[in-house]
Amino acid sequence: MSSGYFTIDEPLRYEGPKYKPSAKRPLGYRWYDPERIVLGRRMADQLRFAVCYWHSFVWNGSDPFGGDSFERPWHAAGGDPMKQAMHKADVAFDLFRLLDAPFFTFHDRDIVPEGATLRESNLNVRRVGEVFARKMEQTGIGLLWGTANLFSNRRYMAGAATNPDPEVFAYAAAQVKNVLEMTHELGGENYVLWGGREGYETLLNTDLKRELAQFGRFLQLVVEHKHKIGFKGAILIEPKPAEPTKHQYDYDVATVFGFLKAHGLEKEVKVNIEQNHALLAGHSFEHEIALAQALGIFGSIDMNRGDEMLGWDTDQFPNNLPQVALALYHVLQGGGFTSGGLNFDAKLRRQSIDPDDLIAGHAHAMDLCARALLVAEKMVEDGALARHVQERYAGWDGKLGRAILQGKRSLADLAAIVDKSSLEPKPVSGRQERLEALVNSYL
Amino acid sequence: MSSGYFTIDEPLRYEGPKYKPSAKRPLGYRWYDPERIVLGRRMADQLRFAVCYWHSFVWNGSDPFGGDSFERPWHAAGGDPMKQAMHKADVAFDLFRLLDAPFFTFHDRDIVPEGATLRESNLNVRRVGEVFARKMEQTGIGLLWGTANLFSNRRYMAGAATNPDPEVFAYAAAQVKNVLEMTHELGGENYVLWGGREGYETLLNTDLKRELAQFGRFLQLVVEHKHKIGFKGAILIEPKPAEPTKHQYDYDVATVFGFLKAHGLEKEVKVNIEQNHALLAGHSFEHEIALAQALGIFGSIDMNRGDEMLGWDTDQFPNNLPQVALALYHVLQGGGFTSGGLNFDAKLRRQSIDPDDLIAGHAHAMDLCARALLVAEKMVEDGALARHVQERYAGWDGKLGRAILQGKRSLADLAAIVDKSSLEPKPVSGRQERLEALVNSYL
Amino acid sequence: MSSGYFTIDEPLRYEGPKYKPSAKRPLGYRWYDPERIVLGRRMADQLRFAVCYWHSFVWNGSDPFGGDSFERPWHAAGGDPMKQAMHKADVAFDLFRLLDAPFFTFHDRDIVPEGATLRESNLNVRRVGEVFARKMEQTGIGLLWGTANLFSNRRYMAGAATNPDPEVFAYAAAQVKNVLEMTHELGGENYVLWGGREGYETLLNTDLKRELAQFGRFLQLVVEHKHKIGFKGAILIEPKPAEPTKHQYDYDVATVFGFLKAHGLEKEVKVNIEQNHALLAGHSFEHEIALAQALGIFGSIDMNRGDEMLGWDTDQFPNNLPQVALALYHVLQGGGFTSGGLNFDAKLRRQSIDPDDLIAGHAHAMDLCARALLVAEKMVEDGALARHVQERYAGWDGKLGRAILQGKRSLADLAAIVDKSSLEPKPVSGRQERLEALVNSYL
Amino acid sequence: MSSGYFTIDEPLRYEGPKYKPSAKRPLGYRWYDPERIVLGRRMADQLRFAVCYWHSFVWNGSDPFGGDSFERPWHAAGGDPMKQAMHKADVAFDLFRLLDAPFFTFHDRDIVPEGATLRESNLNVRRVGEVFARKMEQTGIGLLWGTANLFSNRRYMAGAATNPDPEVFAYAAAQVKNVLEMTHELGGENYVLWGGREGYETLLNTDLKRELAQFGRFLQLVVEHKHKIGFKGAILIEPKPAEPTKHQYDYDVATVFGFLKAHGLEKEVKVNIEQNHALLAGHSFEHEIALAQALGIFGSIDMNRGDEMLGWDTDQFPNNLPQVALALYHVLQGGGFTSGGLNFDAKLRRQSIDPDDLIAGHAHAMDLCARALLVAEKMVEDGALARHVQERYAGWDGKLGRAILQGKRSLADLAAIVDKSSLEPKPVSGRQERLEALVNSYL
Repeated sequence: MSSGYFTIDEPLRYEGPKYKPSAKRPLGYRWYDPERIVLGRRMADQLRFAVCYWHSFVWNGSDPFGGDSFERPWHAAGGDPMKQAMHKADVAFDLFRLLDAPFFTFHDRDIVPEGATLRESNLNVRRVGEVFARKMEQTGIGLLWGTANLFSNRRYMAGAATNPDPEVFAYAAAQVKNVLEMTHELGGENYVLWGGREGYETLLNTDLKRELAQFGRFLQLVVEHKHKIGFKGAILIEPKPAEPTKHQYDYDVATVFGFLKAHGLEKEVKVNIEQNHALLAGHSFEHEIALAQALGIFGSIDMNRGDEMLGWDTDQFPNNLPQVALALYHVLQGGGFTSGGLNFDAKLRRQSIDPDDLIAGHAHAMDLCARALLVAEKMVEDGALARHVQERYAGWDGKLGRAILQGKRSLADLAAIVDKSSLEPKPVSGRQERLEALVNSYL
Repeated sequence: MSSGYFTIDEPLRYEGPKYKPSAKRPLGYRWYDPERIVLGRRMADQLRFAVCYWHSFVWNGSDPFGGDSFERPWHAAGGDPMKQAMHKADVAFDLFRLLDAPFFTFHDRDIVPEGATLRESNLNVRRVGEVFARKMEQTGIGLLWGTANLFSNRRYMAGAATNPDPEVFAYAAAQVKNVLEMTHELGGENYVLWGGREGYETLLNTDLKRELAQFGRFLQLVVEHKHKIGFKGAILIEPKPAEPTKHQYDYDVATVFGFLKAHGLEKEVKVNIEQNHALLAGHSFEHEIALAQALGIFGSIDMNRGDEMLGWDTDQFPNNLPQVALALYHVLQGGGFTSGGLNFDAKLRRQSIDPDDLIAGHAHAMDLCARALLVAEKMVEDGALARHVQERYAGWDGKLGRAILQGKRSLADLAAIVDKSSLEPKPVSGRQERLEALVNSYL
Repeated sequence: MSSGYFTIDEPLRYEGPKYKPSAKRPLGYRWYDPERIVLGRRMADQLRFAVCYWHSFVWNGSDPFGGDSFERPWHAAGGDPMKQAMHKADVAFDLFRLLDAPFFTFHDRDIVPEGATLRESNLNVRRVGEVFARKMEQTGIGLLWGTANLFSNRRYMAGAATNPDPEVFAYAAAQVKNVLEMTHELGGENYVLWGGREGYETLLNTDLKRELAQFGRFLQLVVEHKHKIGFKGAILIEPKPAEPTKHQYDYDVATVFGFLKAHGLEKEVKVNIEQNHALLAGHSFEHEIALAQALGIFGSIDMNRGDEMLGWDTDQFPNNLPQVALALYHVLQGGGFTSGGLNFDAKLRRQSIDPDDLIAGHAHAMDLCARALLVAEKMVEDGALARHVQERYAGWDGKLGRAILQGKRSLADLAAIVDKSSLEPKPVSGRQERLEALVNSYL
Repeated sequence: MSSGYFTIDEPLRYEGPKYKPSAKRPLGYRWYDPERIVLGRRMADQLRFAVCYWHSFVWNGSDPFGGDSFERPWHAAGGDPMKQAMHKADVAFDLFRLLDAPFFTFHDRDIVPEGATLRESNLNVRRVGEVFARKMEQTGIGLLWGTANLFSNRRYMAGAATNPDPEVFAYAAAQVKNVLEMTHELGGENYVLWGGREGYETLLNTDLKRELAQFGRFLQLVVEHKHKIGFKGAILIEPKPAEPTKHQYDYDVATVFGFLKAHGLEKEVKVNIEQNHALLAGHSFEHEIALAQALGIFGSIDMNRGDEMLGWDTDQFPNNLPQVALALYHVLQGGGFTSGGLNFDAKLRRQSIDPDDLIAGHAHAMDLCARALLVAEKMVEDGALARHVQERYAGWDGKLGRAILQGKRSLADLAAIVDKSSLEPKPVSGRQERLEALVNSYL
């Protein structure tokens, strides 16, 4: 079952915090212990890691100023596409196995190149899908989500659902139908829509109102089809403010919520939140998680990290322990994942050209998340953070607070109360520095 | 009627494009010609300029690293507050007169300092309000909008409506009631809410969900009171993403829309869009205008400009002709202002310490907007931009497009259409460079 | 001489401000009048426009999320590389001719693909160079500058001069030698170095001090070789803060100046300033121009515009008249170009897929710059701006000011002067708003 | 000796990692153990903590949108200034004592308000200085550095050294002379210059070249005076890119280096690097430290943290363990502090209104830095990071590398080497993900 592509052949296993790499076991988990029970669930079930196809097996290391640095065998020009696709699938499942990763994710265009017609493309996708089905059965690896690539081909350059040409809308619909059904058949737990070209390059050639209406209709069609075929997974939108387009309609969680409300979809669709996308929209990762939970649309996570000094999607593997711990604390406070999980939408730096870097990059990220989960577990179990917040708002559980929220006090009532008692509220310390220190005490 | 504070005494008037400043007429309008008809309305009625109280008469030139640079007489420490307030009002109305500005705007805290209790503060506000009423009647100057300052006093340091303490909510309600009623009595055309402290400094001490519920209830109370007192003006929310707080709930137009929908207020409340706030949220000014129009919540404009290289609200006077022209083009395309207008939420640089700089700063900004309006008028009259957009989306007025939007095509229908015809849409040039050149041709 | 690639065949010509496009003459210059005398030089000689090879003939419309949108014939996979290179050169010179552009610019890797060895690559470059020489002689089009691409190939992924491997340094040296000599032979007026990979991805694997020493030595080698071969053009460094790398050593003009001083090269090397690079470094375009002039290292300009809301190099064609006018004002104030010029390091948006968009994009940008030059000419001729600045600093031409700058006053002397006279300087208005209005009056 | 202002009276002490706050000892150090030997020096001597006067005792909690939230007794309006100053000094030294902080820092304007003339102001400063001298002797607390406030008063609104008026230059010189001498007399270890107004608001009224010359002369005067009075401490410039001005000349470390070189001061002046200033300039904290070390101008640190999502100087207390550890690792790799130290240029959030928050904020920050130092110690002792870097550049210690750097190979030589051997360098993995994991293994 080994692809022969990596220098190790045995899956990584939990070795404990004192583990030191050796020639015999060059890689192992110091923190990721799948069977350990964390807040009542297996660690593996709390984290629900997924490896993504695109960054790991499709991207060749190119960037806007440079070409292929990886030179993977399945990227070689002139090879037989389907043969390369099958080799790629072998290596992919070998990586999943070596990492002991429970899930993977993909776009249709990741797994096989486009054919002469959409029919041929879809058939090719399905042919690899059959291979996936076999491998999934053999290995027990699951599909966290599938998605259709509606952004790379030039036909989508002016949008998919939001294209000025309804034929492009139809084409996109046909592509989504294929992947949604395949995701369903593979037992996928979610279906994701990232609107990379659903936005505009310049308002000068754009009818914002029309495009929003088209986009809403598209999403309704997807939800209708999901119900028609009996897919039980969640439909997820992935917010991102810009890149590749100048402005993308799914800007951030708050924007997506308004859009869902406008189209009556707020009970049907949730969000897939990415750390780097949050950052590009001017938000912290935990803000987007907490907001999605408050609005009832939290779905899943694309786990990576951006570079705050750089203005584009760097998609690096996460590596800051306290930051990841705080994000997972919010996930846990909201009840943890249901259909979602932690998908590593993260890529190697383009200088990390050794095949083993693929293993190391993921393994270290999984270990970091596991360690962060244990920190978050302490935060939850200790309860001091949550208690502080609850006590801070205690007044709202009192008489005045409840009366206000229940609609029993008008503006005039409140003015009369203030006037009568010459009320002057007493400011209370926000204690930010102490709470930050409390967080650090769990590290 | 002159305050004696400025070196000129005669109101500026329209002098024509060839006007050159002279000793006798050192300032005049080259473009602002209030009576000129632009697209069917007086220029003054298209632009609806307002001068704001806070930057021009309250701010003393201080910044986080420096103190009072202006040394206005009414800022002198130890003076009698009500006397200073009356002097300030005299100078303010003198400036409005000299500029020939049709409107002004204010916060309660701008016009007179806080008293020992809210009752006293509110009474002081009303006393100056009586002066305003007289001056407004004498001069014909109107009130574009009033608002309550719910952010400067330490009682609001953790929010007004979103404060953890319901007593602060009550205090804020009492303050808003006073200003809303005064705005109504003065014939104000709108009432604005800017939630400068409605957000959080750290999620560690914040219950996002509770705060959003409080904020929604507060807004409902304001709307209920508006109807109770018969105020016909618009209630406007002013989006801003951050500053002073780390995160503000009224982040941008899209966020406000979702919030209004969540609280059933999308027909009751509109937005007051500020150029610099748009920028801080990562949007272009015209994006926020066009989006508000598409969502049906466009209200009014706080006209200024930010510095794209600086990360805070610089509130400079607008000065880029093509940018302002494009913004006004969008305002015109949406039908122009109803209750809203162009309020100069703009302040002098702190080195501009001459009283006459107050006149010059506003006068040049008004002239720039007038010139930009004439450019926008050409864009509208020529129609080439709008025509291009309409033609680009023509397919959506065709058979397939209409069927999709009317819900007559399912995902499966669309897939069948693509499959049957081996449909491959034809990409069309977006023509961005040519459209940008077209815009420049109107300058 | 026509390539048959564009729908027009006659070079664009000056048509005057009232020109309207017609079927017969769909494109023409409204402002670019090469022979018009502007401040004592032909307009063409003030602006010194250059068209770049890379964006116009090499880039295929791809971005990090999408592929070839242009489908140029010479990008077709599987074609004969040298044949494609020759076709590309024909189209390129056809575009230069149609635009009436006096200069072009190129990288070695733009004009022909890499061969099996560097020797072969360099020979291929020279073969196209011979074609260039012929075409340049026939057309009178000149070479503004040449440069070597030291960033696209994977061998440069960790830097060229700053690579941890000295063999890469040697390879880069060999590549630069070839292009520097070819630039010399073609009569190029400058040679440019942009250090796209001269920086780091992470400090964790970087020895900053070593890399700076390597980089300094490389630049000295280039200067030594320039003198050896008798090249009279300028050597130019192009600052950019990041992208593709996380941090680039040639961050901005000030950083480059310090680097040149450290290596004794501040008299030998100048800067090629790009608008979008200035922006990414947190500077305005005119700041970088004015600073380079103040430091004596102003060389040339890469003319484009960035999007202030986006964090990457968008390389759009310039289109904001007042901004370009201010930049050109600074160029003129510094004496105008010597060996430098305005190179359009600007690319079409990827939706602008018509071949004619290449003509339109450049033509409109040239026209905008010409119009901006005429605005800048007015600023210079009127002299009010310069006069204001001179008067503001008049004190430094007085007794105290001169004594200080000539080193005739110690800290103690100055303290004694202040003490003796109880000196309290009088603040003077900075007049920013009036100066901004003055700038607009020249539009 | 207690000021009675805080609820604790005993200095904090080292309690060990398992310490839990109790009623009796509500605060203590879990990691800061001053006497512990870290890499050959006392922990206190490695960290050299300083508490700053301005944020802790001068700032009243105001921000651009709100006033005094702290209500410290010495901020009360109408109090006797010198009496308030003395009370402030008592509380300050009480805080230093309670924290067991070895150093403090101040501006002249922090310790006492301005008098009617500079002579009076300077005398007032010296009067408090005498109190400082006594308290320093009693407590053993040292002065890390002093500085003059050349930015708050309106006389400096257009710059101090870079003011268009040479009288302002003289005034600034007199102020610096006083504080430099006082710093010398108090045994201060450094003197700092932060040029908050040394920059411009708009290029339209600015002569960049003149201002740079003025600024250079000013710095030379300070250095000359330092030598004249025999001050042995370091002169430090503190880079910051903007805020309060639009552009500041001391933009970042690289810019300061170029400026020092231009004025022959690179051996005389070093830099005081601030985390938040690095961030605002688009750099990581460790970049600025490593660069200053590579350029030989590393001096001291202003320890705080900025918010990457906010565009202004938030000056928060540091709280991210891995980030601080990496910064300290670079400090240690460069040999550790000599005259410099870790000055907390950090302020409480304005909602942290309890006096004890001042203790808690500093204590937690000190503890975090101590913990980070222990992590950095492990990095240094293990040596794996440094070894990796050394090995990566091994080629430069080989024959080719040395020959290049020693100037023994010309461009032509290198080209010949490549040509002769058909040299094609072999790319090597940059191993970024593995190095990041290595860093985390030390946490």
